[in-house]
Amino acid sequence: MNPIQLFDAESSTYTYILAAPDSRDAVIIDPVDRNLERDLAHIERLGMRLTHVLETHAHADHVTSAGALRALTGAKACVPSGCGIPPAEVQLQDGDVIPFGGREHIAVIHTPGHTAGSMCYLWRGNLFSGDTLLVGGCGRTDFQGGSAEALYDSVSAKLFTLDDATRVWPGHDYKGQSVSSIGWERRHNARLANRSRADFVALMAALNLPRPKLMDVAVPANRNLGLAHSV
Amino acid sequence: MNPIQLFDAESSTYTYILAAPDSRDAVIIDPVDRNLERDLAHIERLGMRLTHVLETHAHADHVTSAGALRALTGAKACVPSGCGIPPAEVQLQDGDVIPFGGREHIAVIHTPGHTAGSMCYLWRGNLFSGDTLLVGGCGRTDFQGGSAEALYDSVSAKLFTLDDATRVWPGHDYKGQSVSSIGWERRHNARLANRSRADFVALMAALNLPRPKLMDVAVPANRNLGLAHSV
Ligand SMILES: [Fe+2]
Ligand SMILES: [Fe+2]
Repeated sequence: MNPIQLFDAESSTYTYILAAPDSRDAVIIDPVDRNLERDLAHIERLGMRLTHVLETHAHADHVTSAGALRALTGAKACVPSGCGIPPAEVQLQDGDVIPFGGREHIAVIHTPGHTAGSMCYLWRGNLFSGDTLLVGGCGRTDFQGGSAEALYDSVSAKLFTLDDATRVWPGHDYKGQSVSSIGWERRHNARLANRSRADFVALMAALNLPRPKLMDVAVPANRNLGLAHSV
Repeated sequence: MNPIQLFDAESSTYTYILAAPDSRDAVIIDPVDRNLERDLAHIERLGMRLTHVLETHAHADHVTSAGALRALTGAKACVPSGCGIPPAEVQLQDGDVIPFGGREHIAVIHTPGHTAGSMCYLWRGNLFSGDTLLVGGCGRTDFQGGSAEALYDSVSAKLFTLDDATRVWPGHDYKGQSVSSIGWERRHNARLANRSRADFVALMAALNLPRPKLMDVAVPANRNLGLAHSV
C-alpha cells in the first residue's frame, strides 16, 4: 500500500497522497503552493475526497498549500503542535493517531532535530520522514530550534527502531532517490549509520550551509498555512 | 497496491517498480539507461530481487536499461512480440499473463496505435499504459507502424472498457501529472473522450510533430535492449 508520490522540481519537495483502500478518502502530506492545481487535479482524476492536510514542519524552502486546500476541499489542517502554526485546527502531539477513511490510522511521531517541532508520520509500513531522515542523509539542524543532538536522538530512538522493512518516504531529494527503507538507512545512511552522537554533532556543525533563500518569506507564510492573511 | 513511480527528467519518462507484497520479488517497467544506478539503488535499499524487466514498446525518445538490468540482476527481459526486440527471452502476446513474486499476475494487453507492437500491462487495478494512453492525452501515431485508427480502437475497446477505478500510470508526462483513472480519461481525455474515430484520426494527422531527436539512435538501441552489441 504505497502512497502516491508527487514532486516539486523547483524546491525538490515530495508531496504524498495517501488513499484509503476502502473509501474515497485521502490525506495529503506537505503540499506545495505552486502545485495547488496539479494536486487538486490528481484528487479529482482519482475520484478522491481530501479529508486531511498534514505538514511535517514549518518549511523554510517552499510555501505550503495547506490553507488553500482546506478552503477548497474542507480538509482538516493537521500540524505539529510545536511548529507555531496557529490557524491549523489539529495541533498534533507525539503519540497521536489520525484516523481517516474509515479504517486507516496514521501514527504521529515527534522527531525534533531538523526543527524543534518536526513530526514524522507512519501509515501501513510507510514512514513519511519529512526532513528528519532523508535518503542517505538528513535535514539541516541550524535554525527554527534545530538541534543536531535532538535529531540524532530522534532518529536513533524513534526511527531506526522501526521494522527494517518500513519504507522511508523523504520530504526532499535532489538525486531522484524516491524511497528507502529503515533497514538500509540504519546500516548505510552516510550521516547517521555507525556514527557516534558526538561525531554526528561535529559533522553537522561543520556543514556551514547558506541561509535558505526563501526562509524569510516561507516560514512566516507556512505559520499561516500558506495563506496571505490570518484566518 | 500502488507501484513505485520513478521519473527521468531528461525525457520525462516514468519508470515503475512493482513490488510483490508477499515476497522480495519485483518487476520494473520501462527503465531508462541513464538511471541504471538510481534504479538498482532503489532495488537494493528496499531489499528487492528483480525478476522481470518489461518494455511497453521500442522507445524513440530514450534508451532502455533492460539489457543492463538483465545482465546485472538475472531478471528476464519481457517485450511485446511485435516490437522487433529479438534478444528478449520473453516475447509477449495479447492475453499473456506474467506471473511473479509467488502470487502476482500481470495481464498483457496488446494496444497497437502508438507503435504497432505497443502493449499495456495491468496489475492489481493499475494500468501501465505506456504511450498508448497519457494523462489527458495519448502518444503520437506517426512512426514505427503507428496508426491513429488502431490507437482509437485499442483505447476504446481494450482500455476504456476496464473498471472506472483502474489507475492509469502513463509512460510519460510533461506537467507533473503522475496518475489518472480510466473513468476520468474516458470522460475527459482531451483527445479521446467524446470524439468520433474520424475526428480523432483527423486530429492526429494534423499534429505535424517534429521527428524525435533521439529516434535514429534510440530505436535501434532499444531493439537490442539498450545494449551496444547483439547478445
Ligand atoms: Fe525543512
Ligand atoms: Fe513512445
